[in-house]
Amino acid sequence: MRYHRIPDETVRRLPVYLRGAIHLSRQGVENVSSSELATMLGVNAWQIRKDFSYFGDFGTPGVGYELKILIKHINKILRLNTGHKAALVGVGNLGSALLSFPGFAAYGFDIAATFDIDKRKVGRRKNSILIEDVSRLRNLRRRGIYLGIIAVPAKASQEIAEMLVKAGVRGILNFSPRYIAVPKRVKVITIDIAMDLARLPYYMPSS
Amino acid sequence: MRYHRIPDETVRRLPVYLRGAIHLSRQGVENVSSSELATMLGVNAWQIRKDFSYFGDFGTPGVGYELKILIKHINKILRLNTGHKAALVGVGNLGSALLSFPGFAAYGFDIAATFDIDKRKVGRRKNSILIEDVSRLRNLRRRGIYLGIIAVPAKASQEIAEMLVKAGVRGILNFSPRYIAVPKRVKVITIDIAMDLARLPYYMPSS
Repeated sequence: MRYHRIPDETVRRLPVYLRGAIHLSRQGVENVSSSELATMLGVNAWQIRKDFSYFGDFGTPGVGYELKILIKHINKILRLNTGHKAALVGVGNLGSALLSFPGFAAYGFDIAATFDIDKRKVGRRKNSILIEDVSRLRNLRRRGIYLGIIAVPAKASQEIAEMLVKAGVRGILNFSPRYIAVPKRVKVITIDIAMDLARLPYYMPSS
Repeated sequence: MRYHRIPDETVRRLPVYLRGAIHLSRQGVENVSSSELATMLGVNAWQIRKDFSYFGDFGTPGVGYELKILIKHINKILRLNTGHKAALVGVGNLGSALLSFPGFAAYGFDIAATFDIDKRKVGRRKNSILIEDVSRLRNLRRRGIYLGIIAVPAKASQEIAEMLVKAGVRGILNFSPRYIAVPKRVKVITIDIAMDLARLPYYMPSS
């Protein structure tokens, strides 16, 4: 079953709910109400109820949502239960951090290939994955890779994005702090770390 | 002037608009319509108009929004024009990547102190910033630091969060893939990179 017409904003929140649900589940909790989840995650309770309504009415009044079912639903909607291979481009500080980041595996992701332009890095292994020359970044489709991760300097990000698209990638996680242009069929999620930090001062007391 | 009652969701989108506006402005563009911005950023045009309505009605029908004014507004709302010092805890791969990340300075952030638990790192300098022993993580307020960045392994994140709060921090950017509990007055933004990647498969064609 494919869940249609879930708004982008809801899709963005689903992993947040998933993380909260996994956290509670590990602590032995079995059910959670929308208001408990809301307090824990800093989201509105009505927003949670509205978001959950997209995948059927499974909450029980007075009891809340069963965490096991909630986790199953979200995994299914986000198709995290299938496993996804990703190609990482750029094995600098950030790329190395990503390679050793345990969070990817937790969500079914597997960085299956890495590329860099630096000849001193090419041919070596990092976390047992061979670093390939960026010129070999083609035909990822044949290798079963549909996701690309861009961790190169900003000025190279557009070029790398185009190479990834040509190689058959359908989704890009972009860590360069720059807007990248790709065909509409390719989904880009940009992680601009400074942008996330940029939300914080709003909440600070005036000094 | 303080802009009151702007919803969290809008605050979350403001940096996205800001990045888009800066990008267009650098290309010599002077005005942008909500629909142009919408197409570029992958947000709904009505959402943009609604978000912008929180800071007064400054768009001109048929012309759009003046980018210079838009950038000024957002910077003011997010208080990015004042400059903010941050303390980074954890100088591993990820912490090092953050230290050399040019994006922070672009938004007025300055990593003014770094801490680590590893005795081999303590006392050394990274990007000319002294790495201090984590036991010295106190009284950040006295040093004018109100923002903390957590880049330590997941199992240490809660303890570090508590130390940062005690030291006077009012906002935390959390890179550990774990929920952290802090008093309500402290705003936490968690960057779970895998969670962002987790949104991508939803948009992929079924394989």
